[in-house]
Amino acid sequence: MTRQQLVEQIKIKRSYLCVGLDPDIKKIPAHLLSEPDPIFAFNKAIIDATGKFAVAYKPNLAFYENMGAKGWSALEKTLAYIPKDCFTIADAKRGDIGNTSLLYARAFFDQMSFDSVTVAPYMGEDSVKPFLEFKGKWAIVLALTSNKGADDFQFLKVAKSNHGDNDQLLFEMVLKKCASWGDINNMMFVVGATQADMINRVRKVVPDHFLLVPGVGAQGGDLAAISRSGLNKDCGLLINSSRQIIYAGNGNDFAEKAGEEAKKVQKEMDLLLKEAGL
Amino acid sequence: MTRQQLVEQIKIKRSYLCVGLDPDIKKIPAHLLSEPDPIFAFNKAIIDATGKFAVAYKPNLAFYENMGAKGWSALEKTLAYIPKDCFTIADAKRGDIGNTSLLYARAFFDQMSFDSVTVAPYMGEDSVKPFLEFKGKWAIVLALTSNKGADDFQFLKVAKSNHGDNDQLLFEMVLKKCASWGDINNMMFVVGATQADMINRVRKVVPDHFLLVPGVGAQGGDLAAISRSGLNKDCGLLINSSRQIIYAGNGNDFAEKAGEEAKKVQKEMDLLLKEAGL
Repeated sequence: MTRQQLVEQIKIKRSYLCVGLDPDIKKIPAHLLSEPDPIFAFNKAIIDATGKFAVAYKPNLAFYENMGAKGWSALEKTLAYIPKDCFTIADAKRGDIGNTSLLYARAFFDQMSFDSVTVAPYMGEDSVKPFLEFKGKWAIVLALTSNKGADDFQFLKVAKSNHGDNDQLLFEMVLKKCASWGDINNMMFVVGATQADMINRVRKVVPDHFLLVPGVGAQGGDLAAISRSGLNKDCGLLINSSRQIIYAGNGNDFAEKAGEEAKKVQKEMDLLLKEAGL
Repeated sequence: MTRQQLVEQIKIKRSYLCVGLDPDIKKIPAHLLSEPDPIFAFNKAIIDATGKFAVAYKPNLAFYENMGAKGWSALEKTLAYIPKDCFTIADAKRGDIGNTSLLYARAFFDQMSFDSVTVAPYMGEDSVKPFLEFKGKWAIVLALTSNKGADDFQFLKVAKSNHGDNDQLLFEMVLKKCASWGDINNMMFVVGATQADMINRVRKVVPDHFLLVPGVGAQGGDLAAISRSGLNKDCGLLINSSRQIIYAGNGNDFAEKAGEEAKKVQKEMDLLLKEAGL
């Protein structure tokens, strides 16, 4: 999916909601466990209920790998079921030496047909670039994550001597360097919502890129604060919610509850878009 | 596998060779393509031929994910086939927020039964720690990688103000911090062999840890130089070779050729161990 198509979908649906498809066999409603593929049955119902309110879906690979070949097959069926007007994100946080990263890119873009993959930056340029070489596909690079461990390395001060201007934090260096390898049409960045005060710093380095923002909801991020700092003229945000939506209920009406929750978020996003003149 | 068991295997086999099981369907011998599972057939023959000379096997996940559920199944069969006296490494470079990293750890340690997983450090402590909580299992953290992109972030100077002693490079900070989360019995580090001159710097920070060293062979690393800088009193090295061994031949005798190549490396390692008084 191209940037233009994504922006169109945001305008049509008045939403920049991404639903995280992180199904946990221990948390999904009991009545689904007798289905031949309970994980797919769960995802299918969630997609049916939230499709009108979400512009993107993001399965986190850990939830599928955890189940071996069976999980992989549930992932493939889920991806095939996501409506074509939705942007799809393989939240895989991959990254390896160049020729191996290319295999990962092929796995997610060719073997499956995700629109994007999340990518870890530590191994540098040749680990990221292979994900940028597929038409209409995206690398979403981890810059600032939503977890506590983000403090350990992402906020390290990088010494002046590296680049000749003021000290900057490692995540700013990651944004700057990675942005130079791609452009706003094939690269996004992960910026954790629990770091609301940091969004302004991020926007100074990458004003035009789309940001994928996890951490709203269960992890404590604030939708309005993030949006007011992060929205740009093309919206420029995909805000992910997983647990808050997919586990809104756990009875026979779990999908209905998920739909209601997604609708609530979409309504708030509609207002925030209006507030930003979009 | 515990550290003690690994060290014993190294002494018995007089080898610290790890064979990278990175099978590429386009490169494996043509006569295997008619097998029901060509990838497993290839791996099985390579394991049979090299098992006497190698103490570890390291499948890189990209080569399997690339083939979807079928690849995942080939990986499971391969893992089950590796002799129990060999150390197994899932070269997956995973890492996510804490509860999600735990799912990855379960995928590789419980669902499958790898001894270790390679882990990316960018997301910090809670992304690494879940891999340390399984008895006899290991996290192998990326510190200094063997690719060109290693220069982009791993060699950045981290400003003094972060820690109050001399400037250090990011990979040194990664070694230091990560080492404090685990110990020499559940953590190793990836240190690229193309960075031979850096091994001394690595050993200053982590003298006792095992290092997993990729990049020998096709990527240009020098076995003797790496060993002379990196060996410690328990050996402390696993040196990986993939392409140089598994593609030593591509005819009907590919496995024999792989065995010969592995034997050659093992002989050199035997001498290097002797030289180091081991």
